[in-house]
Amino acid sequence: MSMSYSVLTWATPLFGVFAFLLAYRMYVSIQALPAGNARMQEISGLIRDGALAYLKQQSLYLSGFIGVASLAIMYTLNWATAGCFLLGAFSSLLAGFLGMKAATMANVRTAQAASEKQPGQALMVAFNGGAVMGLTVAALGLIGVGSLFLYFLPQGVADLVKAHEPIIGFAMGASSVALFARVGGGIYTKAADVGSDLVGKVEAGIPEDDPRNPGVIADNVGDNVGDVAGMGADIFESYVTCIIGCLALAATMAAGDITKLMSDPATDPKIGQYWLMGTPLILGLFGTISSFIAIKWMGVLKDGDPAKALRFAVLIASVLFVAASAVFMPLFSPLTFSLWVPVVFGTLCGIGIGLLTEYYTSSKPVFEIVNAAKTGPATCIITGIAVGFRSVALPVLVIVAAVLVSFHFGGVYGVALAGVAMLSTTGIIMTVDAYGPIADNAGGISEMSHLGAETRAITDKLDALGNTTAAIGKGFAIGSAGLTALAVFGAFTQTFISKGVSINLSITNPNLVMGVFIGGMLPGLVVACTMQSVGKAASLIVNEIRRQFREIPGLLEGKEGAKPDVSRCVEISTKAALTEMRAPGLIALFTPVIVCVLMGPDALAGLLLGTTVVGVVLGLFMSNTGGAWDNAKKFIEQGLVEGEKKGSDAHKAAVVGDTVGDPFKDTSGPALNILIKMVSILSLLIASFLVQ
Amino acid sequence: MSMSYSVLTWATPLFGVFAFLLAYRMYVSIQALPAGNARMQEISGLIRDGALAYLKQQSLYLSGFIGVASLAIMYTLNWATAGCFLLGAFSSLLAGFLGMKAATMANVRTAQAASEKQPGQALMVAFNGGAVMGLTVAALGLIGVGSLFLYFLPQGVADLVKAHEPIIGFAMGASSVALFARVGGGIYTKAADVGSDLVGKVEAGIPEDDPRNPGVIADNVGDNVGDVAGMGADIFESYVTCIIGCLALAATMAAGDITKLMSDPATDPKIGQYWLMGTPLILGLFGTISSFIAIKWMGVLKDGDPAKALRFAVLIASVLFVAASAVFMPLFSPLTFSLWVPVVFGTLCGIGIGLLTEYYTSSKPVFEIVNAAKTGPATCIITGIAVGFRSVALPVLVIVAAVLVSFHFGGVYGVALAGVAMLSTTGIIMTVDAYGPIADNAGGISEMSHLGAETRAITDKLDALGNTTAAIGKGFAIGSAGLTALAVFGAFTQTFISKGVSINLSITNPNLVMGVFIGGMLPGLVVACTMQSVGKAASLIVNEIRRQFREIPGLLEGKEGAKPDVSRCVEISTKAALTEMRAPGLIALFTPVIVCVLMGPDALAGLLLGTTVVGVVLGLFMSNTGGAWDNAKKFIEQGLVEGEKKGSDAHKAAVVGDTVGDPFKDTSGPALNILIKMVSILSLLIASFLVQ
Repeated sequence: MSMSYSVLTWATPLFGVFAFLLAYRMYVSIQALPAGNARMQEISGLIRDGALAYLKQQSLYLSGFIGVASLAIMYTLNWATAGCFLLGAFSSLLAGFLGMKAATMANVRTAQAASEKQPGQALMVAFNGGAVMGLTVAALGLIGVGSLFLYFLPQGVADLVKAHEPIIGFAMGASSVALFARVGGGIYTKAADVGSDLVGKVEAGIPEDDPRNPGVIADNVGDNVGDVAGMGADIFESYVTCIIGCLALAATMAAGDITKLMSDPATDPKIGQYWLMGTPLILGLFGTISSFIAIKWMGVLKDGDPAKALRFAVLIASVLFVAASAVFMPLFSPLTFSLWVPVVFGTLCGIGIGLLTEYYTSSKPVFEIVNAAKTGPATCIITGIAVGFRSVALPVLVIVAAVLVSFHFGGVYGVALAGVAMLSTTGIIMTVDAYGPIADNAGGISEMSHLGAETRAITDKLDALGNTTAAIGKGFAIGSAGLTALAVFGAFTQTFISKGVSINLSITNPNLVMGVFIGGMLPGLVVACTMQSVGKAASLIVNEIRRQFREIPGLLEGKEGAKPDVSRCVEISTKAALTEMRAPGLIALFTPVIVCVLMGPDALAGLLLGTTVVGVVLGLFMSNTGGAWDNAKKFIEQGLVEGEKKGSDAHKAAVVGDTVGDPFKDTSGPALNILIKMVSILSLLIASFLVQ
Repeated sequence: MSMSYSVLTWATPLFGVFAFLLAYRMYVSIQALPAGNARMQEISGLIRDGALAYLKQQSLYLSGFIGVASLAIMYTLNWATAGCFLLGAFSSLLAGFLGMKAATMANVRTAQAASEKQPGQALMVAFNGGAVMGLTVAALGLIGVGSLFLYFLPQGVADLVKAHEPIIGFAMGASSVALFARVGGGIYTKAADVGSDLVGKVEAGIPEDDPRNPGVIADNVGDNVGDVAGMGADIFESYVTCIIGCLALAATMAAGDITKLMSDPATDPKIGQYWLMGTPLILGLFGTISSFIAIKWMGVLKDGDPAKALRFAVLIASVLFVAASAVFMPLFSPLTFSLWVPVVFGTLCGIGIGLLTEYYTSSKPVFEIVNAAKTGPATCIITGIAVGFRSVALPVLVIVAAVLVSFHFGGVYGVALAGVAMLSTTGIIMTVDAYGPIADNAGGISEMSHLGAETRAITDKLDALGNTTAAIGKGFAIGSAGLTALAVFGAFTQTFISKGVSINLSITNPNLVMGVFIGGMLPGLVVACTMQSVGKAASLIVNEIRRQFREIPGLLEGKEGAKPDVSRCVEISTKAALTEMRAPGLIALFTPVIVCVLMGPDALAGLLLGTTVVGVVLGLFMSNTGGAWDNAKKFIEQGLVEGEKKGSDAHKAAVVGDTVGDPFKDTSGPALNILIKMVSILSLLIASFLVQ
C-alpha cells in the first residue's frame, strides 16, 4: 500500500471527527445568540419538546425493530454484520437527533434576527443551523464508514468479498432506520400540516400559523421531525449507501477489470482494488472539506440576494470538489485519469437535476398550473399532474447521459463513482436542505408571537427559498438513488460470479421479468400506504381541531385566556405517525425477501431493477408535482399573478393542489427514494447470504 | 400438413366473413326498431353527424400519416409489409367506423325502448348495438390475420422468419391507427365532457345533458368517437397484436423448442411449427364462436338483473372457449396437452383482473373515497390516488402468476398463448364494452328530449353498469398488453438469435438498463401530453360555453326559441382533438426508433421492458383511480351514502375527483395500453429490419 493511500484512508475518519467538532463549535455559537422574548421562547420550547418527545418515542419503537433485525442478521450472516447494522442504525438516529437539536434552537434565533430587521443575519442563523446538520451528517458518514473500512479490510485481504460484507450491514442499518424515520416523520408533518390547514385556513378562515389553531404547534413540530430529522436520516443513508455501494462493487471486481482502471497496467491488482475501494471515501473527504469552505463563504454572501447566495454556495462546493479530484487523481492515486470523467459527470448530473427541478417547480410550468387553477380545483390538479409527469423526462435523460458517459470511461465502477461524486458534497446539500424548515419554523414563531408584518415578510422571503432548495435536495437524492442502485446491481451480480454461482440475468428469463413487474408495483404500494396514512392521520387532527373550536369557549374569537390544547394534537400526530409507518416499512423490507425465497435470486435482481426504474420515475413525479403546486399557491399569495390574490377562487383551487401536493412531496416521494436504496442494500445482503 | 389443420386455418377467415354477416344482420334488425319522436331523431341525428364528421376528418388526417409510414416501411423493409400495414390501418379505421354507425343508431332506439318502460328491451337494444361492434371487431381480426396467414405462409416455408414479417406489418398498421384514434377520441370525449360539466353543472347549476348547455351534443359525440370508435380501434389492435405476437414467436422458434411442445416428440418440427403458428388463430375462431353463442344467450338473460346478465354473458363465453380448447387440443392438434394450461390461466387472468377492477372501482374502496370527500376535494384526491396505487398490486400479482404458470407449462410460447386466450373472447368483451357508451348516449337523448324522470331512471341504471363493464374491459386490455409484450419480447430476441446476430440482453449491460429507464419515462410523457391536451381543449370549450350563455339572450333561462349553437362546440372539440393527438403519437412512434439508432437494439429491448412495466403499473393506476372517483360521485348521487346527496359539499368534492378522473380513465390510461403494444410491434419490425 502506498504512503499516500494510508494517509488518505486514515484522514477520512479523522477529518470526520474534526468536522464533527466544527459542527459542535457552530452549534455553541448559535446558542449564544439572543433567543427572543418570553413568548417566543415559550413557543419554541413547545416545538422543541414536541419534536424531542416524538424522536424519543420513534427511537423506542425502532429499537425493537433494530433488535430483531440485528438478531436475524447475526443468525443468517454473522455477528460482525449485525454489529455494523446496529452501528449504522444508531448513527442514523444520532444524525437526526443532533440535526433537530440544532434546528429547534436556530428557528427562534432566526425569528429574533428577523424581528431586529436584519435579513442578512436571519439568513445566516438559519443557514448555520442547517450547516450544523450538514456537517454532522457528513462527519458521521466519514467516521462510520471510514473506521469500518480501516478495521475490516486489512483483516480480509484473502477474501475481500467476504471481508467487506459487514460494511454493507452499516448501510442496511442506516437504510432501514431512514425508511421508518422518513415515512414516520413524513406522515407526522403532513398530517399536522394538512389537518391544521383544512380546519384553520379553509373552514375557519384564520391565517396559517395562527396561535388560536390548536394544530399549529404540531405543524411546526412536524417540520422538525419530518423535514429535519427524517430528511437527515434520508441523506445520511443516501451518503453512506452510495459510498458503500461503490466500495462493495470494487470488492467484488475481477483482477482483469481492476487492471483496466489503473493508469499503469502493471499495478498489482490487489493494491489497485484497495485504491478502488478507498476512492469513494476519499471523494467523500474532499467533498466535506469543499462543503466546509462553502459554508464559511456564506458569511461573505449573506447580504446579497439570498437565492443566489444559496445557489452559489452549492456551486462553490462542487467546483472545489471537482478541482480537488482533478489534482488528486493523477498525482496521488494509481487510478486512470479517465475515472475523473465520471466524477465530473456525476457532479454535473446532480446540479443538472437540481436546476431542472428548480425550473419545473418555480418558473413557467408553475404559471400553467396557476392558469388552470382559474377554472377550478379539478383543472389545477389535472395540469399539475401533467406538469409533474412532463418533469420526469429530462432528469431521466440527464441520468441516462451521466450513466452512459461514466460507463464509457470507467465501466460499472465509473457509474458507481458518479453516484458518489453526486453526493460527496452532502455537507452543503444537507445544509441548504435543512435551512428550509428552520426558516419555515421561524415564520411560524413570528406569527404566533405577533412579531408583526415586517418581521413576517423577512421570514416569508427566507421560507419561500426553502421550497426551491428542498426541491434541489430531492433531485440530488433521487438521482443518486438511481446511480447507486445501478452500482449495487453490479456488486450484486459480481457477488454471485465471484463465488462461481450461476445466475441467469437475461431479460428473456421470465422469472427475472416477473421480478421486474413485482418490483415495479412496489413503489406504487408504498405511495398508496403513505398517502392513505396521511389522509387518515389528517382526519384525526381535523376532528380534534374542530372539537376544540367547538368546546373551548372564546378560542376561535381570540378571547383573552382562551388557550388551545396544543399538546393533544402533538400526541395524536405522534401516535398516528408511529402506527402508520409500520406497514410501508415492513412491505418494503419483506417483499424482496419473499420474492427471493419463492422465486429465486434472478427474480430478486429483476425486482431491484423494477423498483429502481418505477421508483425514480414516480419519485421525481411526486416531488416535482408537489413542489409546483406549492409554489402555484405561493405565487398567487405573493401577488405574482395578475387579477388573483389570497382568497380568490383561483387561490382556493391552488390551495387544494397544494394540499394534495403536501404528501406527494414530503411523504410519498421521499419514501420512494429510500425504498430504492434500501431494496438495493437488502439485495446485496441477501446475495452475501446466498453465496455463503 | 394434416387435414384438420388445413380445415381449421381455412375456417378462420371464412368464419370471420360469416361473423361479419351476422353482425350485419343484427345491424339491420336494430335499424328496424322504432327510433322515437322527431325531437329524439333530431338530437340523435346531431350526434351521429358530429361523430361521423369527426371520424372523416380523423381518417383524412391519419391517411397522410399512414401514407408516409407505409412508404417508410416499403423503403426500409419491403412492399409486402407496407401493404399489410395499409391493410391493418384500414381494418382498424373500418372497425371504428362500423361500430360507431351501429352505436349512433342503437342509442336513440335504446332511449325509445326505455320511454316505453321496457327496461329489458332497452338493455337488449344497447347490448345488441354493442354486439354489432363486438362481432365486427372479431370478424375483421379473423379475416385479416387469417387471410394473410393463408397467403404468406405457404410461400415462405424456406424462411419462416422472413415469411411472417409482412403479417407484423398488419399489427403495426392497426397499432398506429389505434394509438392516434384512442388519443384523439380520448381527448375529444373528455374535453367536451369536462368542459360542459365545469360550466353547466358547476357554474350554472343546470343538470348534466341539459339541452340548454351548448356542449352536450359534443359530449355525446365524444362518447361515440372516444368510447366506441377509439375503443374499437384499441381492442381490434389488442386482438390482432396478441395473435400476431404469438405467431411471430412461433415463426422464430428453434426446432428443439418446437419438439418440446409436441405430444409426440417424433412430430416433424416444420409441421409442429405451423401448428404453433396457427393455434392462436384457431383459438380466436373458438373464442368468436363462443362469444356469438353468449351474445345470443343474452335474449334469455335480459329480464333478470342486468349486472348479472352482462357478467354471466362474459362467463359463458369463457367457459365455452376453455371447453372447446380442451376438446380440440388433445384430439385434433399434435401439440402437447400441457399447452391447455396456459389457455386456462390466460382466461382466468383476464377474469381475475376484471373482478379485481370491479372490486376497486365499485365497492369498499369507493366508500373510502366517499368518506374522504366529506373533508373536501383535497382529501378526496389524496385517497383516490392511494386507492388507485393500491389497486395495482393484486392485478400485477395475477399477471405474474399467470406468466409463471404458463411459462412452466409451455415456455415463452405458453405465455404468448395465455395472452391470446385472454383476448380470444374479444367478441363478447367488446360487446359489453361498447354497450356502456350506448346506454350513456341513451340517457343523454332522454334528458335532452324531455322523456321524463321514469325513462331517465331506466337509462341511468343501464348507464351505471357501463362504468363497471368499461373497467372490466380495460382490465382485459391492460393484462393482455403485458402478456403480449412478453411474447413479442421472446420473438424479438429470437429474431436476432435465429439469424445469428448476437445481442447482450443481460441486465448487467448498462446500455440495456438505460433503455429501461428511457422506456420507463415514456408512459409518463404520454400521460403528461394527453392530460395537458384535455386540460387545454376543455378550457376552449369552457370559454365557448361561457360566451354562449353570455351572448345568446334567454339561453340560460330556457326561454322558448333561445337555442344553443351546438355545432361550435363540436367543431372546437374536433379541431382540438386532431391537433393534440399528434404529439403523444409521434413521441411514442419515434422514441423507440431514436433509441435504437443512437444506443442499439439492446437499449431498444430495455426500452420495451421499461415501457411495459411502467405502462402496466400506470395504466392500471389511471383506469382504476378514474373509475373509483366516477363511482364515488355516482354513489352519492344514488343516495347510497348516508347524509350526503347531490349538491352537498361531499358531492362537490366528489365531482372534482370525477373530473380529474375523466382523463385518467378515458384518455391517458387507455393510451398507455396501446403504447405498450405499439412499442412491442414496432420493436419487432425494427428487429426484422436490423437482421436483414
